[in-house]
Amino acid sequence: MDGSGEAKAKAPQDRLAEWLAEDMAAVNALIRERMASEHAPRIPQVTAHLIEAGGKRLRPMLTLAAARMLGYQGTDHRKLAATVEFIHTATLLHDDVVDESKRRRGRPTANLLWDNKSSVLVGDYLFSRSFQLMVETGNLRVLDILANASATIAEGEVLQLTAAQDLRTDEAIYLQVIRGKTAALFSAATEVGGVIAGAPEAEVRALFDYGDALGIAFQMVDDILDYGGQDAVIGKNTGDDFRERKLTLPVIKAVAKATAEERAFWHRVIEQGDQREGDLEMAMTILSRHGAIAAAREDAIAWAGRARAALDNLPAHQLRALLSDLADFVIERVL
Amino acid sequence: MDGSGEAKAKAPQDRLAEWLAEDMAAVNALIRERMASEHAPRIPQVTAHLIEAGGKRLRPMLTLAAARMLGYQGTDHRKLAATVEFIHTATLLHDDVVDESKRRRGRPTANLLWDNKSSVLVGDYLFSRSFQLMVETGNLRVLDILANASATIAEGEVLQLTAAQDLRTDEAIYLQVIRGKTAALFSAATEVGGVIAGAPEAEVRALFDYGDALGIAFQMVDDILDYGGQDAVIGKNTGDDFRERKLTLPVIKAVAKATAEERAFWHRVIEQGDQREGDLEMAMTILSRHGAIAAAREDAIAWAGRARAALDNLPAHQLRALLSDLADFVIERVL
Repeated sequence: MDGSGEAKAKAPQDRLAEWLAEDMAAVNALIRERMASEHAPRIPQVTAHLIEAGGKRLRPMLTLAAARMLGYQGTDHRKLAATVEFIHTATLLHDDVVDESKRRRGRPTANLLWDNKSSVLVGDYLFSRSFQLMVETGNLRVLDILANASATIAEGEVLQLTAAQDLRTDEAIYLQVIRGKTAALFSAATEVGGVIAGAPEAEVRALFDYGDALGIAFQMVDDILDYGGQDAVIGKNTGDDFRERKLTLPVIKAVAKATAEERAFWHRVIEQGDQREGDLEMAMTILSRHGAIAAAREDAIAWAGRARAALDNLPAHQLRALLSDLADFVIERVL
Repeated sequence: MDGSGEAKAKAPQDRLAEWLAEDMAAVNALIRERMASEHAPRIPQVTAHLIEAGGKRLRPMLTLAAARMLGYQGTDHRKLAATVEFIHTATLLHDDVVDESKRRRGRPTANLLWDNKSSVLVGDYLFSRSFQLMVETGNLRVLDILANASATIAEGEVLQLTAAQDLRTDEAIYLQVIRGKTAALFSAATEVGGVIAGAPEAEVRALFDYGDALGIAFQMVDDILDYGGQDAVIGKNTGDDFRERKLTLPVIKAVAKATAEERAFWHRVIEQGDQREGDLEMAMTILSRHGAIAAAREDAIAWAGRARAALDNLPAHQLRALLSDLADFVIERVL
């Protein structure tokens, strides 16, 4: 969309990071300062393991970009950006306990390095710290948005727990789950950026819509890649959702078109959890037979398009062009 | 202290519940309303298991009593009372995961009935709901107090994790741990009651001091009873802390006076976790030998006295007398 071929050489999030370098440096300093604990050194150890682990800081950049794009001149957007990153990190810590994960970002998870207890409690600590940070802005509307987002995230996680292993999970439930587990924090991140900048309602709404659609596209792509993406080749991260018996978009689409025999297969591997050698390959064959990956990819592309379209309601700005590129970039891995 | 012999027939918390009956009914309705989830029925199931399980609602009553005692006529104190109960319930859910508990209030814990995942995520949901409730009051000072309390609670829990199994844990660290895990929510509960009532600073401070001292006394009594209390008889709940290798006040006092032989015993059972038949009885014998239970009891009594003394800075009121009785009642089980 936007950006010349030359500028395209760098990923949009790297260009965003450059544009926001001063803000991001301040956010990183704030994160380091606030993840400290005078009394419990275990806290910064666990947190640093995750926060320093080369995460892309995508969510805080969304807040910074939204605020700057709308002309914000203060520094409270940095507190909100750190808030958003803390909420994200807290949910990662709790997710790894819930999913019994052993690796994240190519490193052992905190629950493996320390224990589940530390992951649960340090996650709670980061939630509380995020809460302190946002209260410091003194902006009640921002607090309202982030409180609602937190509840939506937790509700989405519980919904995913009960929707997993259940073949009745349809695309509407799936959308609710990923809105909760992923899009709610994206949309809150962009929305609070607009609110703190004092943007008019229509622009705040556009920022919410952009974050919502971007988050949905982002999670759909993740779920597609879990089945090897378009190439449907088994890579190192292929099949995690399958093993955890999660009903994600490709499987939901395939289940909707399943023959009796295929239904029996899904029933056995997802609902009964009886997975055998070769079952993942079989699942991928069935997905491919019904064009389930291709259809899921079309959905992701459509959501990225909605994200870009939402930006039309915002004033022209270099950051707006970068956010538009970001929407394209998010789906690039499945194109 | 206060109250005639006749009124004493009923426990102070029952008399508080009577005095605050209308408020408490509204708080209970609010709790039921806000623990619901349209999309994830697992949430109210897990929550109801805990919230309906005959908890004494002590913490929300503290908020209601503080606000009413200072003449508050609005209804926001009910939101804050529900907030406090949600935070308490969320920490119970996470504690049971961390402690791998199997029973709470005489019933199987949620992590046993459902799973650890549900306990972690429903706890997160209740934290978020508590956050939404307090934001609705629109009172930034209240938000600040509760955000700080949340951070202190989480920090105290992590500190307990690292202080457990370590004989170097002294009374100062113990005080920090129980201030975090218990007293921080008591003091926040009373303090926000005063703030929402618009009480003068000295009274808000007195309410904080009362809640802080009450919470400390409350937890000390709990820790004493875990070793059978004054009678040092093994009851059905005796020895949980011992088995979990927690350094609580009686043990800390005994370790401080330990002979070389006793030190070796504590090292084996607490630090190495090598516990054998008869070790709990041996621990209780050592505690008794050094008067550790009696000394811990003296401390609890002193903290209850501090709680009562803090009330002197508040205007005379029937509720003030009830809160004073409550401080006596909290230590009654070890008198």
